[in-house]
Amino acid sequence: MFGGYNRRYKHFSPTLGCSMNFHIYFPPSPPSSPSPKFPVLYWLSGLTCTDENFIVKSGAQRAASKEGIALIAPDTSPRGLNVEGEAESWDFGVGAGFYLNATQEKWKNWRMYDYIVKELPNLLAENFPQLDTARHLYLSVSAFAPIGNPVNCPWGQKAFTNYLGGNKADWEEYDATCLVAKFHDVSATILIDQGEDDKFLHNQLLPDKFSEACKKHGVPVLVRLQPGYDHSFFFIATFIDDHILHHAQALNL
Amino acid sequence: MFGGYNRRYKHFSPTLGCSMNFHIYFPPSPPSSPSPKFPVLYWLSGLTCTDENFIVKSGAQRAASKEGIALIAPDTSPRGLNVEGEAESWDFGVGAGFYLNATQEKWKNWRMYDYIVKELPNLLAENFPQLDTARHLYLSVSAFAPIGNPVNCPWGQKAFTNYLGGNKADWEEYDATCLVAKFHDVSATILIDQGEDDKFLHNQLLPDKFSEACKKHGVPVLVRLQPGYDHSFFFIATFIDDHILHHAQALNL
Repeated sequence: MFGGYNRRYKHFSPTLGCSMNFHIYFPPSPPSSPSPKFPVLYWLSGLTCTDENFIVKSGAQRAASKEGIALIAPDTSPRGLNVEGEAESWDFGVGAGFYLNATQEKWKNWRMYDYIVKELPNLLAENFPQLDTARHLYLSVSAFAPIGNPVNCPWGQKAFTNYLGGNKADWEEYDATCLVAKFHDVSATILIDQGEDDKFLHNQLLPDKFSEACKKHGVPVLVRLQPGYDHSFFFIATFIDDHILHHAQALNL
Repeated sequence: MFGGYNRRYKHFSPTLGCSMNFHIYFPPSPPSSPSPKFPVLYWLSGLTCTDENFIVKSGAQRAASKEGIALIAPDTSPRGLNVEGEAESWDFGVGAGFYLNATQEKWKNWRMYDYIVKELPNLLAENFPQLDTARHLYLSVSAFAPIGNPVNCPWGQKAFTNYLGGNKADWEEYDATCLVAKFHDVSATILIDQGEDDKFLHNQLLPDKFSEACKKHGVPVLVRLQPGYDHSFFFIATFIDDHILHHAQALNL
């Protein structure tokens, strides 16, 4: 696709205790460099998604091809564990891992934080010499319609209560608005696009809370409200090129 | 999306005797022209598709927005009629209308030719003043991995036998390779992209038959074999911009 190719991989994850799929888009090798090492952009999908949605719907491969960036699209939760209640709602359980390490016994397999931050990067480093996995993770960050302050919205409160228990101090470890107060040594501007017609904007996503916290702590952030756009992949497809270019510039490609 | 918007419409089709869906992508209006009339590009999907696949997967809206072209994505067959056997195979019946007018009693509702060539353009003209439907249809034509010579391939033979009966002269009315011998007053070059790794290339699609007929009859055609590409929407997404630009040039936009 766009001179490169999409590949889907399946592996057993010791972190999660189940088989997991992920996709990689490999950009084309430039003629001048037959064995390049491609910088890596992780796409962490949101509620209900698998590793496929972004690969099929975003059109991100166009800009990734042009900029020579590899795209990594993991899944959003463990699957196939048959934990009671795991598939009862679309905002919790399967397809809704919230990229945290659960502490409650029932959801002990939900360790997407460790999977994404540790296991998957190590697996890529060991198996894909064409990926430049030696760089630090998350040198540059951006998001589409993120859950900006989950401790203060129904999605987050439901998930954190079940995964992490009732101690709200534990929740703050996985809330960007809380975290930016503690870790504000961020050099690259955080780019956020948010559709103004997104029906989740005012009760779930709360980007203002995050941008206020960023401003308070000197973290560079650019929140772009996009009129006429909703929460769909059409919104993502429209602005994904800007995000990939944003990361390419931050990485000095 | 890309400054414009996708809309899905549902209507009862007298031609087909059932309800039909179609999508339109409306490009943004240029600031200099608040009430423009957009030229129209029909996308006729292939086997198994609905009106949704192209809108979700192709990324065509990017170039359509830039060129100011509206995209029309109809469905590929009647649906919901419950004709015995209509859903038994993916290459015949539902999702496989072949854009013909069936003559066999059992499939009498399969009149996608009239639906696409007559009913739908009239419906658009009556309901969408912002579309420039006064132009002749098919001033410029292109295709991705088309069934170039259906009378000579298994897909076509199965469909034509069932829809049209056993008289092969009737089949030729819906075969591009046969038609180009009769109607060769084609001014705009026909652009065809074809993946070299498409598993249907050599036994079903037969683009060489079509391009040979074009050459014989002086019809301008450009068949581009694309190495490494298969029959998927990833292939279409990679080259759709070229097709939209091709039509924009042919229409003198």
